[in-house]
Amino acid sequence: MREITAENLPDLARGAAVLGTGGGGDPFVGRLLAQQALAVHGPVTLLDVDEIEDDALVIPTAFMGAPTVMLEKLPAGDEVLNAMRAIEDLLGRKATHTVSIEAGGLNSMTPFVAAAEAGIPLIDADGMGRAFPELQMLLPTLGGVKASPMALADERGNAVSLRTPDNAWAERLARASTVEMGCSAAVSLYVLTGRQVKDLMVPGTMTLCERIGRAIREAREGHADPVAAAAEVLGGHLVFTGKVGDVLRSTSGGFARGSARLAGLAGDAGSALELSFQNENLVATRDGEVVVSVPDLICVLDTDTGEPVTTETLRYGLRVSVLGVPCDPRWRTPEGLALAGPGYFGYEHAYVPLPAVEV
Amino acid sequence: MREITAENLPDLARGAAVLGTGGGGDPFVGRLLAQQALAVHGPVTLLDVDEIEDDALVIPTAFMGAPTVMLEKLPAGDEVLNAMRAIEDLLGRKATHTVSIEAGGLNSMTPFVAAAEAGIPLIDADGMGRAFPELQMLLPTLGGVKASPMALADERGNAVSLRTPDNAWAERLARASTVEMGCSAAVSLYVLTGRQVKDLMVPGTMTLCERIGRAIREAREGHADPVAAAAEVLGGHLVFTGKVGDVLRSTSGGFARGSARLAGLAGDAGSALELSFQNENLVATRDGEVVVSVPDLICVLDTDTGEPVTTETLRYGLRVSVLGVPCDPRWRTPEGLALAGPGYFGYEHAYVPLPAVEV
Repeated sequence: MREITAENLPDLARGAAVLGTGGGGDPFVGRLLAQQALAVHGPVTLLDVDEIEDDALVIPTAFMGAPTVMLEKLPAGDEVLNAMRAIEDLLGRKATHTVSIEAGGLNSMTPFVAAAEAGIPLIDADGMGRAFPELQMLLPTLGGVKASPMALADERGNAVSLRTPDNAWAERLARASTVEMGCSAAVSLYVLTGRQVKDLMVPGTMTLCERIGRAIREAREGHADPVAAAAEVLGGHLVFTGKVGDVLRSTSGGFARGSARLAGLAGDAGSALELSFQNENLVATRDGEVVVSVPDLICVLDTDTGEPVTTETLRYGLRVSVLGVPCDPRWRTPEGLALAGPGYFGYEHAYVPLPAVEV
Repeated sequence: MREITAENLPDLARGAAVLGTGGGGDPFVGRLLAQQALAVHGPVTLLDVDEIEDDALVIPTAFMGAPTVMLEKLPAGDEVLNAMRAIEDLLGRKATHTVSIEAGGLNSMTPFVAAAEAGIPLIDADGMGRAFPELQMLLPTLGGVKASPMALADERGNAVSLRTPDNAWAERLARASTVEMGCSAAVSLYVLTGRQVKDLMVPGTMTLCERIGRAIREAREGHADPVAAAAEVLGGHLVFTGKVGDVLRSTSGGFARGSARLAGLAGDAGSALELSFQNENLVATRDGEVVVSVPDLICVLDTDTGEPVTTETLRYGLRVSVLGVPCDPRWRTPEGLALAGPGYFGYEHAYVPLPAVEV
C-alpha cells in the first residue's frame, strides 16, 4: 500500500504510454485529468493485489474511442465517475475498489480519476499488460468474465448501459454508441471480484509504468540513452531505429487505423520498417518480413528523449526507436491468440513469439 | 373498457397500417406477434384514457429501425417484454399500464404483446395519431416528456439502456444501437403518468384503427369501394389514383429512405405523383407541386382491395390510391412543425394544412 500524489503522475503516465504500445491514449491528456482529480480530492491509495479481499467489488473505468479524436475532444472530467455510477445503479452496489483495464497514457490515468472522485483505493494491476483496441481483448475474458453490465458516458450528460451475453457484442454495441458520442466516451465495464483480479489480471502494472517512466526521465537527465533505459526495464529488444516517412491514418469505425513507414538510420540504414496499427501498433514488418506482431508489444519511442510516441502523434520526420517486448504469457496460449493474435486482426502470418531478454 | 381478442386484431392491424402513413411496420408481422401473445396469455383489456388514474405508471413499447429489414428479420417475441423490463429495472417500479407510441401495422400491435405478456391493461391512445420516423417526434415531446430512460432489446438477448438529457440525443444513440443490432430492435421509452397520457397523447387511436380496418373489410366484402370507405372514416381527401412506376429505396442510417413515382389513372391520367419517404411518406408532389406534406398523413392504399401499402412494400405495377388526411392539430403549431414539419426533413416548401373534410 502506498499513496500516489500528483508528483508520481508524470513518470506513471509516461511509462503507461510506453506499455500502451502506440495506443491507450495520450499521456499528457491523461496526466492533466488525473492531476485535476488529485488536486481536488487528495492522494489515491494504491494497493497490491494481495492486499485486497476476495469478495471486493472492483469496477474499472477507461476511455474508449479513436485516440485521434481524444487529442482534440477533451473530456469534461465527470464522465468517468458517471460511467462508474451507472454500473453501480445497475448492480445496486457500490464499488469497493477500482483498477485499470489497460496500460496507456490515458487509460492508466482514468482509474486515478475514478479512485479519487469515488474515494476508493486503486489496485496495482491491469487487464492486459499493454493496450489493445477492442474491449473484449482482456485477460479476464479468457477466464470467462463478462464485459457487461457496461456503461458509457459522454461530456454532454448522455449515459448508455449495456447487458450482452458475450463480450464481442459488448464491443460492437459500445463502439456504435462511442462513435455516435463523437468517437470518444468514458466507459465502465468488467465488474470483477477481488479473487478474479488476483487470478486473471496482470499484477504490478502501475508500479511497472512508474519504473519505466522514471528510467526514461533519469536517463535523459543523466545524458544517458533513454531508449536503452526503457528497454532494460521492459525486457525489450531494440528492433529498429529510423525516421518516420509516410504516415497513412484514418479515423474510421471508432478507431484510428493506418500504417507508418520508417526509413532506417545508423545500423538500420538501407532498411525500412512498416508499422500497421488499429489504435495500437499491431505488426512491425522489416523489409517485408514480420519482426514483431501482436500480442507482443511494439513500443515506439522518440530516439532523443525516450518519450513514447502514440500512433495518433506519429508524424513525418520524427526520429524514433522501436522496441519489441514479450507479452504476458497468457496471450501466447491458443485462446489468447484467438482473442488478440494476428489472425483476429486479419493477418495471415503465424505468430512467432519474441524471445525473453536476459536481464 | 373492453376485451380485445384475436378476432379484433386483423381489422385493428389493417387500420393501424393506414394511419401508419407508409411506416410503422408491417401489419401482417404485427398481427402474428400479437396473435401469438394473446393465444398464450389471453385477451388484453383496452381502457379509455378517462378510465386511468392520474398516477398510473405507463410504459410504452415499439419496434425501431428500418421496415425493409423488419420484413425479413422477424422478432423472436421476447424482446418487447425484455425492453420494458429493462426500463422497470432502471426505475425500480413496475408498469401499471402500457400504450402505443405510434399508429402502425407493427407498432400498434407491439403494445398488445407487452400488455398480454406483462398482464397489464392497454390504453386506447397513441403518441402521434400517425407514425413518424424519429423517436423524438411524439406529441409528449412537445409537453416536455423525456424519451429516456429508454431501453432497446434484440433477439439475441442484448439490451441497451439510455439516459439522455434531450430526446434528439435519445434518437441518435438509440438509432446507432438499432443499426448495430441489425437495423431493428424492440424499444421501451417515454415513461408517462396517467395524467400525461390524458393531456399529451391522442385518445381513441386503437378504436379508430379498428373502425378504419373494419370499414375497408366490409366495403370489400360488400363489393363497395374500400378506398372511399377508409377515406370517410379518416376524414381524408382522395389525392391521386395511379400505378406505381419507379421506386427508389435504400436502407441507410437505420431507415428505409426513397421515393416512388406514380402514373395517374382514370381522372388523374396524364399526371404524375411523386412520393418521398423516410420509413413514412413525407411529401406528395403532383406534377411538381406539393399537394400533401408532413405533418399531414399520406396514406397509400391498394385501389382494388383497400389494403394499406407500406413504403417497404411499394412496388412497380401496383394500382394505388393516395389519401391525404389532416393531422392532429397539435402538429400544426409552430412547435409541432419544428419537430416534424417539412423543414425538419430538409424540404424548403412551407406547410399548407389540408382542409378538414365535412363528414
